[in-house]
Amino acid sequence: MPNSTLGGAGLRGQSAGTTSLCTVGQSGTGLTYRGYDITDLANNAQFEEVAHLLLRGHLPNQKELDEYKTILVGLRGLPEPLKHALELIPADAHPMDVMRTGCSMLGNLEQELDFSQQESATERMLALFPAIICYWYRYSHDGVRIDTQDYTEDCIGGYFLKMLTDKAPSELHKKVMHCSLILYAEHEFNASTFAARVCASTLSDIHSCVTAAIGTLRGPLHGGANEAAMDMIQDWRSAEEAEANIMQMLVNKDKIMGFGHAIYRESDPRNALIKRWSESLSEAVGDTYLYDVSVRVESVMKREKGLFCNADFFHASAYHFMDIPTKLFTPIFVMSRLTGWAAHVYEQRANNRIIRPSADYEGPDAREWVAIDERD
Amino acid sequence: MPNSTLGGAGLRGQSAGTTSLCTVGQSGTGLTYRGYDITDLANNAQFEEVAHLLLRGHLPNQKELDEYKTILVGLRGLPEPLKHALELIPADAHPMDVMRTGCSMLGNLEQELDFSQQESATERMLALFPAIICYWYRYSHDGVRIDTQDYTEDCIGGYFLKMLTDKAPSELHKKVMHCSLILYAEHEFNASTFAARVCASTLSDIHSCVTAAIGTLRGPLHGGANEAAMDMIQDWRSAEEAEANIMQMLVNKDKIMGFGHAIYRESDPRNALIKRWSESLSEAVGDTYLYDVSVRVESVMKREKGLFCNADFFHASAYHFMDIPTKLFTPIFVMSRLTGWAAHVYEQRANNRIIRPSADYEGPDAREWVAIDERD
Repeated sequence: MPNSTLGGAGLRGQSAGTTSLCTVGQSGTGLTYRGYDITDLANNAQFEEVAHLLLRGHLPNQKELDEYKTILVGLRGLPEPLKHALELIPADAHPMDVMRTGCSMLGNLEQELDFSQQESATERMLALFPAIICYWYRYSHDGVRIDTQDYTEDCIGGYFLKMLTDKAPSELHKKVMHCSLILYAEHEFNASTFAARVCASTLSDIHSCVTAAIGTLRGPLHGGANEAAMDMIQDWRSAEEAEANIMQMLVNKDKIMGFGHAIYRESDPRNALIKRWSESLSEAVGDTYLYDVSVRVESVMKREKGLFCNADFFHASAYHFMDIPTKLFTPIFVMSRLTGWAAHVYEQRANNRIIRPSADYEGPDAREWVAIDERD
Repeated sequence: MPNSTLGGAGLRGQSAGTTSLCTVGQSGTGLTYRGYDITDLANNAQFEEVAHLLLRGHLPNQKELDEYKTILVGLRGLPEPLKHALELIPADAHPMDVMRTGCSMLGNLEQELDFSQQESATERMLALFPAIICYWYRYSHDGVRIDTQDYTEDCIGGYFLKMLTDKAPSELHKKVMHCSLILYAEHEFNASTFAARVCASTLSDIHSCVTAAIGTLRGPLHGGANEAAMDMIQDWRSAEEAEANIMQMLVNKDKIMGFGHAIYRESDPRNALIKRWSESLSEAVGDTYLYDVSVRVESVMKREKGLFCNADFFHASAYHFMDIPTKLFTPIFVMSRLTGWAAHVYEQRANNRIIRPSADYEGPDAREWVAIDERD
């Protein structure tokens, strides 16, 4: 009989394996990637340094970083059949379905034939994911076929903004994107990463693992919280209006997105980091209410419910200030978390046993066959 | 701290939830779907009856079965953009990548907007999965654009054979397909089903869940065993040659596919059921060695290692006798297991908590940030 102590409770608190990548919620550190505190990383590193840390095991020196970025920049050209496939997807599709399909299609065209190709396959995805979402978005919404092999922006965040807007991004926007992509890069055995590891445990290819993770991140309990937060705050024009609405939502017991966390108990260490950039962006664009609205929502939630902002809440206003359409928020999460997913796939492959839990059966007892003409 | 008793061991024996769908390896029954023994189902039912049992909760009466089959037959037309996407996939792609991409693309074109659509979305996939693989296969290999909206074959197995070969399948072949699809339909929390449930636990859409499951089934530790068994036995022309080769493989400690099981200890109840059909097909096609080779391999593995055939081993010869290309064996598994995956998604949604286990950390301790120009 299976050990059913925790059955049905989403495996909370149950170890499903080992990792060297990340700690979440350990006292005194909050969140670390390979031992480095998220605050140090977000305040000092480029996203590509963190990708190198997660995927190649150490922070790169300047020469290694330059070489890594050069590799990634050179991989931005979309294969023609992938462009054609993206053109077939309608403008009203869910952008996460586009990401999932783009990744899956790439796996047909550039198959990972054995695990020695896992790093090159990951680098190709790192380079192409911004291209995939922007090619589809610009074609389906603006009727434009963009050339994704851009050499002018040497970082993934800036490249995404350039492909999306057709303009060179500001230094401020590039810094915010580094911070944002670093904050979302890795988070231990969250559901999408765990889906990637379950897939990897059958020794499937890396495109299957990442496709599974994208589909899992798509769910509103996981990746969609910053979009939901934006949908909530976007119509409020003052802190007072925000407070009145939040108070009413609390009376109605409405779900308020962007607060609390399954693991963190007192605060999410990522919040202060992105909140600071939201404030800077607010000043840069001359915002007169959205940042104030966000701060008021934070304080009301703390006062009324004792709940803290998680990584998602101030991402909503930050992305909005950079003119990123709300429905593209979660695809940015994909561009970032790809690093964590892939690093976990490498780990799973290096010490694998197929992930095959048991279940508590609560169905009918064994019963006799009934021929079809004797059924009710 | 997480409960790490079973950490890293693939959650074996650990319950990850509840189910009413299936028991595996319980004494006296072997394998049951909603309480019905697999032997009764495989010997008496059509696959569509089992799909109805798993997805709608009970064995249908004749009227219900007729209506269900009529619905499924009417859903066989591929959307034009899906056809175009399949035409973009090269002939040397992995057929499971084609299935994964076809399912994902379908999710863009016919999005499940809320869970009230889960049954109709599943029925559409049941009808279209044979169409997806055969449309791609026939276009990429034969240059033919088949019309998948066939009304002549009223069952999924026969329809698949018709689309693949452009000929009406024999009654024998249709019976074998019913048995085969029933045997593969459901198997509790196997890795692909568990991946589907992890994805469902974020409340993602059903196409994401099934796409994740397809990618997971693709792994050689899970879905590819019947293909691997076929690759192994296909060159042996007599039982004696087979025995000599198997003995040498055992000396070399080569992995021999199609034997043993993670859960079953003494036998796999599905083996006898498909073995009988392999024998019938062998007689029907005038086979002079492949069935004998298979039987000899079975007896040598029992004698030398005490290992029994699982569901996959005699599927290899059975499918081969029906002229199904080896690389399409696992996509047939997809057409069948879709019923189990979807039924598990319904269950997960009905009593959900996000599946988010913990991990045992074995990485570096907390460490100081090092500026890039101070790194080695």
